[in-house]
Amino acid sequence: MSKEELDARSMKALMTIASAWYDQMKAGDIPSISLPTRTKYNIEYDDASEVWKYGDKESLRTAATAKSATHLLKMAYVIGFVKQQLIENRSSTLREMYYISEGWKRAKFGAQDESNFLVEDLEIISDVPREGFHLRPEENGASIYGPMRIREPTRRGLKMIHCQDDVGSAGYSIPNNVENLELVDHDAKFVIAMETGGMYDRLIENGFDEEHNAILLHLKGQPARSTRRLLNRISQTWNLPILVFTDGDPWSYRIYASVAYGAIKSAHMSELLATPKAQFLGLQPSDIRDYNLPSDKLSDKDVEALNAELTDPRFATDYWKKQINLQLELGLKSEQQAFAARGLDFVTKKYLPARLSEMGVI
Amino acid sequence: MSKEELDARSMKALMTIASAWYDQMKAGDIPSISLPTRTKYNIEYDDASEVWKYGDKESLRTAATAKSATHLLKMAYVIGFVKQQLIENRSSTLREMYYISEGWKRAKFGAQDESNFLVEDLEIISDVPREGFHLRPEENGASIYGPMRIREPTRRGLKMIHCQDDVGSAGYSIPNNVENLELVDHDAKFVIAMETGGMYDRLIENGFDEEHNAILLHLKGQPARSTRRLLNRISQTWNLPILVFTDGDPWSYRIYASVAYGAIKSAHMSELLATPKAQFLGLQPSDIRDYNLPSDKLSDKDVEALNAELTDPRFATDYWKKQINLQLELGLKSEQQAFAARGLDFVTKKYLPARLSEMGVI
Repeated sequence: MSKEELDARSMKALMTIASAWYDQMKAGDIPSISLPTRTKYNIEYDDASEVWKYGDKESLRTAATAKSATHLLKMAYVIGFVKQQLIENRSSTLREMYYISEGWKRAKFGAQDESNFLVEDLEIISDVPREGFHLRPEENGASIYGPMRIREPTRRGLKMIHCQDDVGSAGYSIPNNVENLELVDHDAKFVIAMETGGMYDRLIENGFDEEHNAILLHLKGQPARSTRRLLNRISQTWNLPILVFTDGDPWSYRIYASVAYGAIKSAHMSELLATPKAQFLGLQPSDIRDYNLPSDKLSDKDVEALNAELTDPRFATDYWKKQINLQLELGLKSEQQAFAARGLDFVTKKYLPARLSEMGVI
Repeated sequence: MSKEELDARSMKALMTIASAWYDQMKAGDIPSISLPTRTKYNIEYDDASEVWKYGDKESLRTAATAKSATHLLKMAYVIGFVKQQLIENRSSTLREMYYISEGWKRAKFGAQDESNFLVEDLEIISDVPREGFHLRPEENGASIYGPMRIREPTRRGLKMIHCQDDVGSAGYSIPNNVENLELVDHDAKFVIAMETGGMYDRLIENGFDEEHNAILLHLKGQPARSTRRLLNRISQTWNLPILVFTDGDPWSYRIYASVAYGAIKSAHMSELLATPKAQFLGLQPSDIRDYNLPSDKLSDKDVEALNAELTDPRFATDYWKKQINLQLELGLKSEQQAFAARGLDFVTKKYLPARLSEMGVI
């Protein structure tokens, strides 16, 4: 969707909310709004889109009580603020909007959690991602390197950037809003999204992107929203396999889960933010055993997290049950850079080709 | 210094250490090495270079005991490993080298702290930064945006990049080694290094870089080594004012201090990593008062940190004493994005022009 289309859709959706209130008041009714109940008891797996979404349970907020009336007042202020941003073609961070509410008298937010939550409500009601409201997150996106070209609208005009030829060795810095990024073309066979910068730099230095026509992405730990959105768009637009390569511990498996399935708090955005086709590449507990990797003992917290994953619906597959049970049995975890114990080329010359071929990717 | 020169200097320095041991053994002496004592009691302010450096205290490590002999053995292995990297033109992360030591039998490192410390020792003895050894940190550098051109050697050849025209809206991603980066030319009057991505994006969106010919840099919290090195090089090469803009709390003042003065653990690299001419722009405690900014109460930990700064030699100036005492009196702290309470343009149209003119920068 182009910037103009997204802007128009956002404006229309927000004005629809406001005019519904106007009509309610004109008819002598108390203004209200209904929202899906946002708890894990109202999350359902949608077979068609392969993502978790909110179910049918709704709750009604009506201005009949002072508390709910204040909530609607705040929402009205946010709608007014976003409308102004759309008209002036400005944007702001969620944090800035929170501070701006200082001037909104009774609609002032008490804490940023409250304003973030309200923006999520607006995303749900309007079915527009907050990027459409020109609201940016604090955190930056990650970096990407590989045979692909993007076109990005910037203050200084449209920029066409080839993510190998036109960038430095740290790659293309993913902006915090990728809705307006055009995926122009590519010459890639698959994407590897990596947890650590050390592994990202290793693959670039070893020329893995050139040898295998691979797009390399540095997730920078738990991935930011724009990073997950870009993976989703690459998967949908170019239909490329997305492979997630992390450390071999329960916290890293959650990084994979957030790429593939999303999080409960953003379940309303799963179709935009999750990449259900993303596959877990490694580091697998069986790799620790098969490659006899340097490892550390699992801590009590690790064991607890692994046990929690055994009952987590996102890990309810034979593959994960087998791997997690194996890890509990071994009592060990390893980092992805542990492959260096076999030499700096081992990961790109042996491990990845073997694993990718086992997965049917190459 | 070009890559070739730095490589040659590294190789020579490391071989000098090894051949000294060889000569000692040939003469029937026990091999040894002497190092500056690395504690805060051996840090001195160097007037000429305006940075903190190690003093004259040295300690001798001799292979007469098993413990020290093992230390020298490890150092010999690291020297051999780095020599191989220089010959093959490879590089590795500190973490990878730690894993590689798995194969070094009795010279295997027990923990990464130990190998990092040994690399610092080698930096001190050889007077070569670890970038010269082709050892990379894990963490990525930050981003930069503004009227300047750099030339970066990459696997795919030399890349000339203009940090406004040739990059996306997130800017140029600073690589983890900036020694080989050539600072080609610029059209800037000053550099603002910012703590938060929100403020960096704000200044870019508001066109502050164009209006004031400013280079904008996102520090990403506590700045990585390559970020500090780049600021040092810009200050030395182009003699531009470097201004640090952070939140107004004691932890953020430490970010400024690490840019301007460096840290004890890297005191041997201060001339390369510190930028003594860097000035603190804000957010100042007096700004909280003068602009009546939204603020939070100081926590006990904040007060403790402010009191510690009052006795820290790096903050021993009239300016800092006055500001810190004022903050303790106010009992308040503010974030740099708090300026948004006055509107999204306030920081670029009012605050920064006023403050920069007060500082004599514009």
